Amino acid sequence: MPEYQTLLVEQTGNIAHIQINRPDKVNAMNKAFWEEIIQAFDWVDRTDSVRVVVVSGAGKHFSAGIDLQLLAQASSEMGKDIGRNAEIIRRNVLRLQTSFNVIDTCRKPVIAAIHGYCIGGAIDLISACDMRYSTPDAHFSIKEIDMGMAADVGTLQRLPHLIGDGMMRELAYTGRAFDGDEAARMGLVNRTFADHAELLSGVMAVAGEIASKSPLAIRGTKEMIRYSRDHSVEDGLNYIATWNAAMLQSEDLKLAMMAHMAKKTADFAD
Amino acid sequence: MPEYQTLLVEQTGNIAHIQINRPDKVNAMNKAFWEEIIQAFDWVDRTDSVRVVVVSGAGKHFSAGIDLQLLAQASSEMGKDIGRNAEIIRRNVLRLQTSFNVIDTCRKPVIAAIHGYCIGGAIDLISACDMRYSTPDAHFSIKEIDMGMAADVGTLQRLPHLIGDGMMRELAYTGRAFDGDEAARMGLVNRTFADHAELLSGVMAVAGEIASKSPLAIRGTKEMIRYSRDHSVEDGLNYIATWNAAMLQSEDLKLAMMAHMAKKTADFAD
Amino acid sequence: MPEYQTLLVEQTGNIAHIQINRPDKVNAMNKAFWEEIIQAFDWVDRTDSVRVVVVSGAGKHFSAGIDLQLLAQASSEMGKDIGRNAEIIRRNVLRLQTSFNVIDTCRKPVIAAIHGYCIGGAIDLISACDMRYSTPDAHFSIKEIDMGMAADVGTLQRLPHLIGDGMMRELAYTGRAFDGDEAARMGLVNRTFADHAELLSGVMAVAGEIASKSPLAIRGTKEMIRYSRDHSVEDGLNYIATWNAAMLQSEDLKLAMMAHMAKKTADFAD
Amino acid sequence: MPEYQTLLVEQTGNIAHIQINRPDKVNAMNKAFWEEIIQAFDWVDRTDSVRVVVVSGAGKHFSAGIDLQLLAQASSEMGKDIGRNAEIIRRNVLRLQTSFNVIDTCRKPVIAAIHGYCIGGAIDLISACDMRYSTPDAHFSIKEIDMGMAADVGTLQRLPHLIGDGMMRELAYTGRAFDGDEAARMGLVNRTFADHAELLSGVMAVAGEIASKSPLAIRGTKEMIRYSRDHSVEDGLNYIATWNAAMLQSEDLKLAMMAHMAKKTADFAD
Amino acid sequence: MPEYQTLLVEQTGNIAHIQINRPDKVNAMNKAFWEEIIQAFDWVDRTDSVRVVVVSGAGKHFSAGIDLQLLAQASSEMGKDIGRNAEIIRRNVLRLQTSFNVIDTCRKPVIAAIHGYCIGGAIDLISACDMRYSTPDAHFSIKEIDMGMAADVGTLQRLPHLIGDGMMRELAYTGRAFDGDEAARMGLVNRTFADHAELLSGVMAVAGEIASKSPLAIRGTKEMIRYSRDHSVEDGLNYIATWNAAMLQSEDLKLAMMAHMAKKTADFAD
Amino acid sequence: MPEYQTLLVEQTGNIAHIQINRPDKVNAMNKAFWEEIIQAFDWVDRTDSVRVVVVSGAGKHFSAGIDLQLLAQASSEMGKDIGRNAEIIRRNVLRLQTSFNVIDTCRKPVIAAIHGYCIGGAIDLISACDMRYSTPDAHFSIKEIDMGMAADVGTLQRLPHLIGDGMMRELAYTGRAFDGDEAARMGLVNRTFADHAELLSGVMAVAGEIASKSPLAIRGTKEMIRYSRDHSVEDGLNYIATWNAAMLQSEDLKLAMMAHMAKKTADFAD
Repeated sequence: MPEYQTLLVEQTGNIAHIQINRPDKVNAMNKAFWEEIIQAFDWVDRTDSVRVVVVSGAGKHFSAGIDLQLLAQASSEMGKDIGRNAEIIRRNVLRLQTSFNVIDTCRKPVIAAIHGYCIGGAIDLISACDMRYSTPDAHFSIKEIDMGMAADVGTLQRLPHLIGDGMMRELAYTGRAFDGDEAARMGLVNRTFADHAELLSGVMAVAGEIASKSPLAIRGTKEMIRYSRDHSVEDGLNYIATWNAAMLQSEDLKLAMMAHMAKKTADFAD
Repeated sequence: MPEYQTLLVEQTGNIAHIQINRPDKVNAMNKAFWEEIIQAFDWVDRTDSVRVVVVSGAGKHFSAGIDLQLLAQASSEMGKDIGRNAEIIRRNVLRLQTSFNVIDTCRKPVIAAIHGYCIGGAIDLISACDMRYSTPDAHFSIKEIDMGMAADVGTLQRLPHLIGDGMMRELAYTGRAFDGDEAARMGLVNRTFADHAELLSGVMAVAGEIASKSPLAIRGTKEMIRYSRDHSVEDGLNYIATWNAAMLQSEDLKLAMMAHMAKKTADFAD
Repeated sequence: MPEYQTLLVEQTGNIAHIQINRPDKVNAMNKAFWEEIIQAFDWVDRTDSVRVVVVSGAGKHFSAGIDLQLLAQASSEMGKDIGRNAEIIRRNVLRLQTSFNVIDTCRKPVIAAIHGYCIGGAIDLISACDMRYSTPDAHFSIKEIDMGMAADVGTLQRLPHLIGDGMMRELAYTGRAFDGDEAARMGLVNRTFADHAELLSGVMAVAGEIASKSPLAIRGTKEMIRYSRDHSVEDGLNYIATWNAAMLQSEDLKLAMMAHMAKKTADFAD
Repeated sequence: MPEYQTLLVEQTGNIAHIQINRPDKVNAMNKAFWEEIIQAFDWVDRTDSVRVVVVSGAGKHFSAGIDLQLLAQASSEMGKDIGRNAEIIRRNVLRLQTSFNVIDTCRKPVIAAIHGYCIGGAIDLISACDMRYSTPDAHFSIKEIDMGMAADVGTLQRLPHLIGDGMMRELAYTGRAFDGDEAARMGLVNRTFADHAELLSGVMAVAGEIASKSPLAIRGTKEMIRYSRDHSVEDGLNYIATWNAAMLQSEDLKLAMMAHMAKKTADFAD
Repeated sequence: MPEYQTLLVEQTGNIAHIQINRPDKVNAMNKAFWEEIIQAFDWVDRTDSVRVVVVSGAGKHFSAGIDLQLLAQASSEMGKDIGRNAEIIRRNVLRLQTSFNVIDTCRKPVIAAIHGYCIGGAIDLISACDMRYSTPDAHFSIKEIDMGMAADVGTLQRLPHLIGDGMMRELAYTGRAFDGDEAARMGLVNRTFADHAELLSGVMAVAGEIASKSPLAIRGTKEMIRYSRDHSVEDGLNYIATWNAAMLQSEDLKLAMMAHMAKKTADFAD
Repeated sequence: MPEYQTLLVEQTGNIAHIQINRPDKVNAMNKAFWEEIIQAFDWVDRTDSVRVVVVSGAGKHFSAGIDLQLLAQASSEMGKDIGRNAEIIRRNVLRLQTSFNVIDTCRKPVIAAIHGYCIGGAIDLISACDMRYSTPDAHFSIKEIDMGMAADVGTLQRLPHLIGDGMMRELAYTGRAFDGDEAARMGLVNRTFADHAELLSGVMAVAGEIASKSPLAIRGTKEMIRYSRDHSVEDGLNYIATWNAAMLQSEDLKLAMMAHMAKKTADFAD
């Protein structure tokens, strides 16, 4: 099991649990975090026994977003030429984006379990996950607007696919806080659980359910939904037909069919 | 009126009612069904007096999805070369997709009235319809995941346009059942009606309302909404301007205007 | 402050309030309106002190949509050749679309405050706004279908991004009326306010909140959300990185950061 | 071997030769032709032993394009309502397009061998083929402009991918004739052969070369080039990776490798 | 006939001739030019008797590109905040782009006749035209690279559709000069004429040929080729079918057909 | 300067020269090569003093393409399940593609200097470069078809942007060899140089010319041309306007302007 400064990674059965682990800093995302999240998901992606991932925050909160020291430091790297600074900034932003792209492109479903603060960069993070669940009193805010900037690590690109366009703009323009109940009503989280403990056990139950399915079928399903977000229905139909041309020759289909006939549960290879 | 083995087609006024008609097999979709649905919608599309279509299931259920015998049979057609098998599978999947594409591209609105089981392939089917209504106790499930495969007849491409991305993934990854009430809350069905009888009469009322409008205007509206799903707002605006360049020269506009002034109901040609 | 025949424009602080001002005609959109709305938003876009716009209707209603005299007049411009008429119609439709495109592309957020009738062309208008709020008894209808035509000024392109596809089609095919409460449930309006007075003060409060943020950051945020609607997540991420390459060199970021540390409110330049 | 009124189809080894066969009418494309071309390519696509197709014209010319009687007849089907006529025309055009789309989407390469007239609809046809070869004195013209219409069966969509945009517009706006030599210089034909006999034997040699390759690899190659025309490089790279996931498990790869090592020619299954 | 400071506009028959008219400044594009070109093409687009446009340079050259004074002036408009300056620059560039977009979107074909210098902004201009012809000794250069900037008025977007990607990059990276003969070989110009006089009479002959065709058909053809550049073949086919649904009901088709039968030249209305 | 097993990297002034360095194996691309090319371009991209890259082959040839041992080895990694093998293959192909994507996305122009064999994977490589130059007797072939497979490392996606579609298909279907002269005629190489020595000095001269320009402007130009390949003209225009919003505030513009006025050569910072 890999070890990190800012993440706590555990594996139980086929479920990996990644905790953001700077509880004394409200799990603010520092330089190490942005690197380690990439390493952690690289490990997830190549570890066959991991079939599904849960992301949560250690301590009282999910995360307060980007560590402001990182922003301060970034500005200290600037030189004299505005054009060359622009290039440095652009590449820095692209690099930060990579840290959440790995969640989006991870072949395995990633579920966010959110309690306490989920602010700024943390919204960018959960927008890149497959599903989100929270406590009723979780505290959300698209805080970037109050930093005098347009959010640039994924919120403005991915969140509009999760909530209605009108509410999206209200939240992004005003930065107003909203809780887990409202998040559930707007579709940002699938449902709320009464408290942190129930949240974790509830999310683990969903994760366990997913982990029991054919891993090939789950990965194909994630790829297709992700692809559909950015392509036409027609392109998507062609893609799944091409994908399944190989995948329907897998043993998993036969295993599932036999289990179905025998009214048993199929036991799929990793 | 055309006759089919697996479908029962009736026309009342300008409404065609297509029932999946294998009630003793929970309306499972066998080989004949996949062919006949194409023929039925071909008939719908070229029959001017049909202005709107209702699809429902005969007996106690909407449909249990693809007939598993079809899958078994498909695997018996396989040869020895993995590459050539892949090509056969790919083309088979594309052919199955065609059976629901005809619903999506049918020029006339198609409304699904759902009661009982609506499982697997049946979700693919209703995702291709214009609107969906159900009883509160209708039983839905994206069942393909339990067959060890990623759904490949349209659910993963069209359903994300109907329900939130987060719920979409939960349902597709877990295959968990949900009822008509939950379907209504997530926007999959527009509303529920108390029981099967009320469902059918309610849906027929909506269909009747649509059938009373200018057929040209209805077909243009469907085409535009369908086109908008896969194109930019700008492309969509240009398309409707080009489309209406001819259509606004139709008599229907004048008929509607005169009826409006006379506070009467316009009577449009097919 | 510019003056118009059909619009009443006022500026309070950094908020511009544009009222459709033909109350005796239920604010029907006549020839002058379609021109003046372009001029008004041109003024908004180049006036630095305007940071956010509220659009509402003078009198008892938001607007009854396009003035039917305009349609009648359009048909009087037709010549003898169907092809050349088609070209004239196509260009007229494109010109009408421009009148609401200026709302969509306005760099500053535009909020619709809706009471009374909001019908036909008025739905096209509010679909082009950033957010919508209404009274509970506001009366909405996609009325074009009853004029024997497919709506062609933006409703069929923009509304599907605001409400579910299934409800979208029901409303567009039937033209049935729905009120503010239903509009809120389907996500068309963000929330309702008890009556016209509360609506206006509520919307002004939201507008004021937005006006207090960094104008550069607000404009960047609007541009990104708008862009995301029509582009892939990947293209959107690249775009914000390029955009912020310059914008993160602005003083606003530093101002915001200092205000945050001092627990004060930043005061941004226009 | 299927028989047709307007086509002469022969198979030699793995090569199908389809001749347009109305030499006394300069191979003008009548109603039967537009149907039979679909049937012929359906036969090609499902006949495993056909690996490549050559299309040419019987008699002295390739084809003079659409039979003008067909246009006359189409106008006789028109009714009174401009809007309904528009819908009929639109669907007729879409149907004609299908007749050349089957060439474009045929899984097997299609080579046009052109001598004599190749005019109007014949340009649409050859634009949908994979490659084109001609005699030096072949006579080409985008003749639709002289019929008072914009070409609508594929020339304006596919030809810009074959020749430079500037020359494309000159030829489409003026309808001026050009010969095989000029066609070769602009890249419309790959090369010219001295006369009709040499053309046919030259094209058959190219076809024979293609027929000797792995049919799976040829079909994959065609699909990829076709797909690249309308998709981004990134989408194309992902598509071939998915496609080859199955295809690289074929025996053809091993056969080719062994033949390569043994310095022999591989003999691939159909 | 409109009069301009920087343009000389003449109409002969159905051909408008627009000359860039600052011969003592090598036709450098100053502030007035960028405005007037918009006005001139607005006039072209709404003047029915103009069916085709020729653009050339008065005096010894086509144009030396943007007037450097304009760049100097632009930098004097800059304020103190880098972010706000960025917004001003971005909008200035978008406004300059509009001046050549009007050529691209003009409904009527625009032909460039090039002699002498054609440098920097002049390449942007001719890239937006339909066709280009030149003298053999015309002198071309993508000069922006020597101004320390990436060309931003259209060259980098439109030129890759006209010449090969490899040559495109060589010319854009090095700014090296090339003459009319090389331009013809790479497809930038359709052909060269021996000298300025022959160039103008040759281009006028092409323009006259185009002006003799059905104006509706020409405009439809331009729209389709333009659309094909940025859309898939499938989208393009659907678009022409929708377009021609109205246009094939025009008299021009019948006129052309009758003229064809009578072996006469059709005389089309504007 | 980094050192590699399969590459020889030298820097002269601002030009990096990367030689494929397995001359005794005809520069076949083995496992190490595919990794090291990524490392080399990572070094190029982050080394400010490198402004342009030349890629060539050590010894008598450019490269014979992928090392067949690599293919053999890949097949030895296969397991028993066809579906899981498909996933392994798909990811392997995507990884190989990455090795040439780094050339395509490298911010700095990459020029291929080709002599001797340039076969199979080598065509994929040069297709990802900015420009290509060769000797007249260079020997090219899209050899993958003779390995029983569709090329999957970029040729089928990038080459159609470089040469005509008709020739593209002939070469990809037949795998026939062609020399540098023919490559120049079809636009694959920009020009030929008489022999290997002249080729290298000619290419170095072009590289030197590029290295003398503003590096910011060169990188912006490459990004724009690359972006235009996969986006609409309109998207491209918006992108350069956003890009230049920052870049036109660079000192390079002023330096270039002053140098231009003083008729000197500007000396730009890295």
